Amino acid sequence: MARNALTPVTVVGLGSMGRALAGAFADAGHPTTVWNRTPAKAAPLVAKGAVHARTVEAAVEASPLIITCLTTFEDTRSALEPAAAAAALSGRALVTLNSGSPAGARAMAAWMTGRGARFLAGAVKNVPEAVGEPGTLLYYSGDRTVFDEHETTLKVLGGDTVHLGHETDLAALYEMAVGAMLLPALVGFFQGAAAVQARGLEAGGMVRFAEKWLDMIKSLLPVYAAEIDSGDYTDAASSVNLFLAGSAHDMELAKETNVDVAWLAPLHDLVERAAAAGHGDHSISALTEVLRKPAQKA
Amino acid sequence: MARNALTPVTVVGLGSMGRALAGAFADAGHPTTVWNRTPAKAAPLVAKGAVHARTVEAAVEASPLIITCLTTFEDTRSALEPAAAAAALSGRALVTLNSGSPAGARAMAAWMTGRGARFLAGAVKNVPEAVGEPGTLLYYSGDRTVFDEHETTLKVLGGDTVHLGHETDLAALYEMAVGAMLLPALVGFFQGAAAVQARGLEAGGMVRFAEKWLDMIKSLLPVYAAEIDSGDYTDAASSVNLFLAGSAHDMELAKETNVDVAWLAPLHDLVERAAAAGHGDHSISALTEVLRKPAQKA
Repeated sequence: MARNALTPVTVVGLGSMGRALAGAFADAGHPTTVWNRTPAKAAPLVAKGAVHARTVEAAVEASPLIITCLTTFEDTRSALEPAAAAAALSGRALVTLNSGSPAGARAMAAWMTGRGARFLAGAVKNVPEAVGEPGTLLYYSGDRTVFDEHETTLKVLGGDTVHLGHETDLAALYEMAVGAMLLPALVGFFQGAAAVQARGLEAGGMVRFAEKWLDMIKSLLPVYAAEIDSGDYTDAASSVNLFLAGSAHDMELAKETNVDVAWLAPLHDLVERAAAAGHGDHSISALTEVLRKPAQKA
Repeated sequence: MARNALTPVTVVGLGSMGRALAGAFADAGHPTTVWNRTPAKAAPLVAKGAVHARTVEAAVEASPLIITCLTTFEDTRSALEPAAAAAALSGRALVTLNSGSPAGARAMAAWMTGRGARFLAGAVKNVPEAVGEPGTLLYYSGDRTVFDEHETTLKVLGGDTVHLGHETDLAALYEMAVGAMLLPALVGFFQGAAAVQARGLEAGGMVRFAEKWLDMIKSLLPVYAAEIDSGDYTDAASSVNLFLAGSAHDMELAKETNVDVAWLAPLHDLVERAAAAGHGDHSISALTEVLRKPAQKA
C-alpha cells in the first residue's frame, strides 16, 4: 500500500500511553496528528513526523479516525468539548482508549452519537512499551462499522485486536472484570517486597519466583472459570479450608516483618464467610458465590 | 544408575500435593514408602509400586529421606510425634513442603534438630499436576548437607530446584512474600467473573484476556522491584494518581452488577494514603512505603 493511502489518524491525549499510540501510527507511516493540553508532550512525536495541531478542533478535523487516550471518560468529554461545539465530530470515527465503568461508556456513546460521531470504546491491555507488538491485546466494543473500516489501522497498535460486540459498554465491562486482578496482585507483591526487605534482602531476589507464581496462577484461571460457569465447586484442588488455614500466617508474618497486612482482613473475611456458607471443602473459586450480593428486594 | 541405587524416599501426607510427590518418586523408580492418617489415599500409589506403611514410625524408618506434605507445621509435628517418640527421626533427613510463617519454620527446625534430624524446609510453588515437570519450582532453606546429598532426588519433583540459604526460615519467608499475590489476584478474578456473569456472559469468555493481563502484570514485576530496591519511585509508568482515578469505577461497577467490592476498600485506602503522603505522581510501587509500618517505639 502506498504511504499516502494509509488512513490519517489523530491521537488526543499524550500521556505515556497516548505517546506510544501516536508513535506507533507515525512509525507505521500513517499521517498522524496529535493534540495534548500540555503541548510540550508532542515534541518527540513531531520529531517522528506527526503534526501537532494547535487546537483540539483542528486535531479532530485533520483525520477521519480519532483516538483519545485520556484518564477517564469525563476527561475525554471535557477535552473534546471545543471540537463538539465546532460540530467537528460529525461524521468521524471516534475511538476511546481509557479506563471507566460500563455506565461511563454508555454515557460517552450517547454523547458521541448525539454529536454525529460513530463510536468505538476500547481498552489497551498492556503497557506503553508493548504498543505495536504482535501479541499486544486491545479490545473494542460498539459501532462495528468503525471496527471493520479501521481494523488494519487499529492493528498498528497491537496484533491481538478484538471486537467484543456491538454493545458499547462491553469493553469497559471486560476492562473492569479483567483489570480487577491488577491492584490486588500488585499490593500482594509490594507486601512481599516489604517483607523480604525487612529481612535485609532485596525485592529483586523474589522477582523470578513471583514470575513463576503468576504463571501458576495463570494456569488456574481456566479451571476456576469452568467451576464458576458450571456452579460445581466440588472438585477442589485448593479448597476454601486450605486458604482458611493460611490466613493465620499472614498475621504472624506481619508481626515479624512490621508490614501492614490490614488490607487482607476483608479477604480473610470472604474466605471465612465461604466456609460458613458450607464451601469449606469446595474449590476456592466458590468465593465467587460469596461476592455475589443477594438481589435487592423491591 | 541402577534402579536399586536410587534413594528410598518416604512421603508423609497424601493430600493432592502429597500424592503427586509420592507418585513422581514412584514413577522415577525410587523405592517409595507412603503414610497418611486416612490410609485409603495410599491406594493409587500402592498400585504404582509404593509401599504403604502401617504406622508413621514404620514410614520414617523405611527411608533416609522423609518428605512431609501436610497443611501446616503444627500438623506436621503432630503427625510425626509418634515417630519422634520412637526415636525414629534421629539421623534422618526431613524435608517439609507446606505453607507456614518464618517463625513456624524456625520452631519446626528446633523441634527437628532436637530429635536428631537434619532439616530442610521447602515449598512447592506450583499445582500438583506440575510436579515432576522440568520448569516446576521448589525452593528449600536450611541444612545444606541435606540439599547437596539429595538434590538429584529432590529434582524428581521439579527441575527448578533451589536452595535459598542455610537459614531454615528463608523458604517460608519467600513462600509468604511470593504467595501474597495469590488470594488477592484470585478474588480479583472471581469478582470479574461475577461481574461478567451478571451481564449474562460466561466467565470462560474472559479467561484469554485475564491470562494476557497476568502476563502484563508479570512484565511489571522487575520494574517495580527495581523501584522498591532503589527507593526511587519518580519514573512512574503507572502513577498512584492513575490508580486513584480508577477507584471510583469499582463502586460504579458494583452498583451495576450487584457484586460485593467491599474487600477493595482498604486497597483504595492504601492508594489514598500514598497520594496523601506525596506519592501521587510516583509509581504505584510507592505503596510499598505505605505498607511498611513505622518502627514501634521502645
